[in-house]
Amino acid sequence: MHDRTAPESLDPEDWDSLRDLAHRMVDDAFAYLAEVRERPVWQAMPEQVEASFRAPVPRAPEGAEAVYRQFTETVLPYPMGNIHPRFWAWVMGNGGMTGALAEFLAAVMNSNAGGGNHAAIRVERQVIDWIKAMLGFPAQAGGLLTSGASMANLIGLAVARHAMAGFDVRAEGMAAAPQPLVIYASSEAHSSNVRALELLGLGRAGLRRIPARPDFTLDLAALDAAIAADRAAGRRPVCVIGSAGTVNTGAIDDLSALADLSKREGLWFHVDGAIGAVAVLADNVRERLAGMERADSLALDLHKWMHMPFEAGCVLVRDAAVHRAAFAMAAEYLEPCERGLAGNQSGFHEYGVQTSRAFRALKVWMTLKEHGLDRFGRLIARNVEQARALGGRVRAEVELELLGPVSLNIVCFRYNPGGLDDAALNRLNREIMIRLQEAGTAALSDTTLDGRRWLRAAIVNYRSRDEDFELLVDEVLRLGRLLKESACS
Amino acid sequence: MHDRTAPESLDPEDWDSLRDLAHRMVDDAFAYLAEVRERPVWQAMPEQVEASFRAPVPRAPEGAEAVYRQFTETVLPYPMGNIHPRFWAWVMGNGGMTGALAEFLAAVMNSNAGGGNHAAIRVERQVIDWIKAMLGFPAQAGGLLTSGASMANLIGLAVARHAMAGFDVRAEGMAAAPQPLVIYASSEAHSSNVRALELLGLGRAGLRRIPARPDFTLDLAALDAAIAADRAAGRRPVCVIGSAGTVNTGAIDDLSALADLSKREGLWFHVDGAIGAVAVLADNVRERLAGMERADSLALDLHKWMHMPFEAGCVLVRDAAVHRAAFAMAAEYLEPCERGLAGNQSGFHEYGVQTSRAFRALKVWMTLKEHGLDRFGRLIARNVEQARALGGRVRAEVELELLGPVSLNIVCFRYNPGGLDDAALNRLNREIMIRLQEAGTAALSDTTLDGRRWLRAAIVNYRSRDEDFELLVDEVLRLGRLLKESACS
Repeated sequence: MHDRTAPESLDPEDWDSLRDLAHRMVDDAFAYLAEVRERPVWQAMPEQVEASFRAPVPRAPEGAEAVYRQFTETVLPYPMGNIHPRFWAWVMGNGGMTGALAEFLAAVMNSNAGGGNHAAIRVERQVIDWIKAMLGFPAQAGGLLTSGASMANLIGLAVARHAMAGFDVRAEGMAAAPQPLVIYASSEAHSSNVRALELLGLGRAGLRRIPARPDFTLDLAALDAAIAADRAAGRRPVCVIGSAGTVNTGAIDDLSALADLSKREGLWFHVDGAIGAVAVLADNVRERLAGMERADSLALDLHKWMHMPFEAGCVLVRDAAVHRAAFAMAAEYLEPCERGLAGNQSGFHEYGVQTSRAFRALKVWMTLKEHGLDRFGRLIARNVEQARALGGRVRAEVELELLGPVSLNIVCFRYNPGGLDDAALNRLNREIMIRLQEAGTAALSDTTLDGRRWLRAAIVNYRSRDEDFELLVDEVLRLGRLLKESACS
Repeated sequence: MHDRTAPESLDPEDWDSLRDLAHRMVDDAFAYLAEVRERPVWQAMPEQVEASFRAPVPRAPEGAEAVYRQFTETVLPYPMGNIHPRFWAWVMGNGGMTGALAEFLAAVMNSNAGGGNHAAIRVERQVIDWIKAMLGFPAQAGGLLTSGASMANLIGLAVARHAMAGFDVRAEGMAAAPQPLVIYASSEAHSSNVRALELLGLGRAGLRRIPARPDFTLDLAALDAAIAADRAAGRRPVCVIGSAGTVNTGAIDDLSALADLSKREGLWFHVDGAIGAVAVLADNVRERLAGMERADSLALDLHKWMHMPFEAGCVLVRDAAVHRAAFAMAAEYLEPCERGLAGNQSGFHEYGVQTSRAFRALKVWMTLKEHGLDRFGRLIARNVEQARALGGRVRAEVELELLGPVSLNIVCFRYNPGGLDDAALNRLNREIMIRLQEAGTAALSDTTLDGRRWLRAAIVNYRSRDEDFELLVDEVLRLGRLLKESACS
């Protein structure tokens, strides 16, 4: 496979030696994932390694062998850590080997899923049909795989804006609104919803954040009152955002009640299900998500609890025609055709922001088929059990303090041996978090609620075993006892 | 590596057999790309294959072996075709094997490039520094890898809106604008810019499309007049969009003149360089892009002429602080930390729409190092030469008609043997396009300008050889002669 007469290209001069290298990559990658438990969750990159990433732009070829060697020395040892059994810092999936292989195969085909008549489009449609079925959405619903739920929220809210504005917002712009548009969400809703409304020209002025109740869910009475007050003041309520799992504590809003309220008030009902929508697969969560299937639009992530490699989000819109109407553009060079490569009308580029789109559906298709949905359901349920058990252990330890109930899979707690004020406890708990990371033992994050900093374990991990949480608590206690002296000083 | 005592997970029960399968995938993939020239550019998916993508959602495991077999039978034979040497339908890159392997490695690590202190962040910063250097941007410029140029245009225009609105648009929304904001682009600008302004709440009313000149570039005199007229009417001009290569014909606006005009008029200068920005690497294009380096924001694609697998776009913003100010959110659970996993301030999630982000920088880093920039420059220059040569051949054939000059790498032409009206020619040329696709010979698109349909060859292909274009013209002539009888009837 070595053709010296071939003109210069980006294909290898020698396919065989690049193939040998690819086989080594596969062996290295399998060892890396099979042995991930034996390595630290995270380790800091040494300064001399970091310096290697301040190199001038490469003009001359270094060759694939040299580049891969550099990768194994300077990149591979320093992952974020979310592949590790004791990573619980943020709501991120583990990824997985089949998903990674699918990313390779998708990139080899390099099909553009923006549109056209080819396999990538069929696979994405199939996957979206499966997601609709999984979440109880009707067959005529529209859907799109996205980079993640932030983009899915933006798309869902853009459709809501277009459908509910009462004027042609795409043509005239937001300045033409006869009344200010208002969208509602709880104070615990994810920041990506805020950003979406800023981008869409509603601004933060167009977002009414309803203070959450003590259990961190949206306060329906306060929402009702806010809608009435906005109407009385001449504003136009258009949409309510419900959270199927909040980022801070995993709280699930009362989605049935929100669906009822939205219907009664004539509002668009958007659900941000980035954290929890797919927990509908889990027997110990499903019923608490009732009402989600009545959303007008729903954002979810597959790179969280479905463990697809980044990026894989999804937006569903109850009415595909309404979805398309918010985005479709006429472009001469994309004009429809009955046959041939372009013979597949209504391409995915007409349902979102992107024109070119990766074949991200392949990893979803392969991974869902490999494992089947029921396994995902069991693994999600196990994480919820693990979160409850961790909450129970924390409650049982007198030096530890638990924040609120464990709603889903997020456990917020702090080391609080008594006798320290919040400022000292905040410093102490941050130091515990950092020491756990620096030792490579476990990765937690922290979050501040009412001026108090809480260690936060977000359990989205099919590799976590029950003993991993015992180790976590033991280490938090050990570090807390070790560090509390200096915190007092 | 087979542990029967391990709890259920998404890891394989038997790492060894999945590894064997992965090695087969590598061998299959190498054969697929090494022999791509021998296969048809495109082939339609048979109905019975298509039917396999209407299956119910999988509840039980099918296993990796079965899934891969189904992939090789139903997916792999039906790519879009842009990996093929005779694909010129749209401006898409070929991808490549190193990029595909990098996608695999990135997914194995599964790091989230939204933020944090780990290798993926360092690699992306390095890559953005290289892109800034390559495009003549200053070191203090900000940048972000994106899904593609559509997203990069949205981000650049969102920054322009925020920086130039004259009020706090993120807080107050577009309805608070004291005067209508206006953004200018030529009639040939890409539709993603229109969509961006719709999303940003300016609406199409906020976009002034200046009719292009006969060479398809922006008409500067008309732009000047439009700005003056808008100011006189009490509107607020904020931004000019220049095209570094238009999608229809590859026309390059006079970017130096646009930079001068923007400076003189106090406007933000955004360049949509999706098609042509990276042609700054090519000796036979570089000087025509002069002025691009003076843009306030610049959108470009690396999955087009840099041949990264989808998705890889990039936005640069001249002033990183202005870029960040348009997007950064305070989120408690992402609060900055001096050490540990979160010890790396100002994460990439503060510069765009996404929160979680794939490690897409790895394919860029590996591919640029493997080949060096100079090779990309030579390959881009060769495509430009090939476009000129194709234009010359078309001009020399009496039955073929060329549209305008060949500005860059896009050649628009039609079969026109004389004696047929435009309606007949439109039908005839579409049939030629479809027959070429259905035979698997070559993939062209078509575009309609002034009511006439033109075959469009967009040459972004490191696998194309000079003889491929000879074959194309020969086949267009053969099909044209064959089909013109029925077109007359």
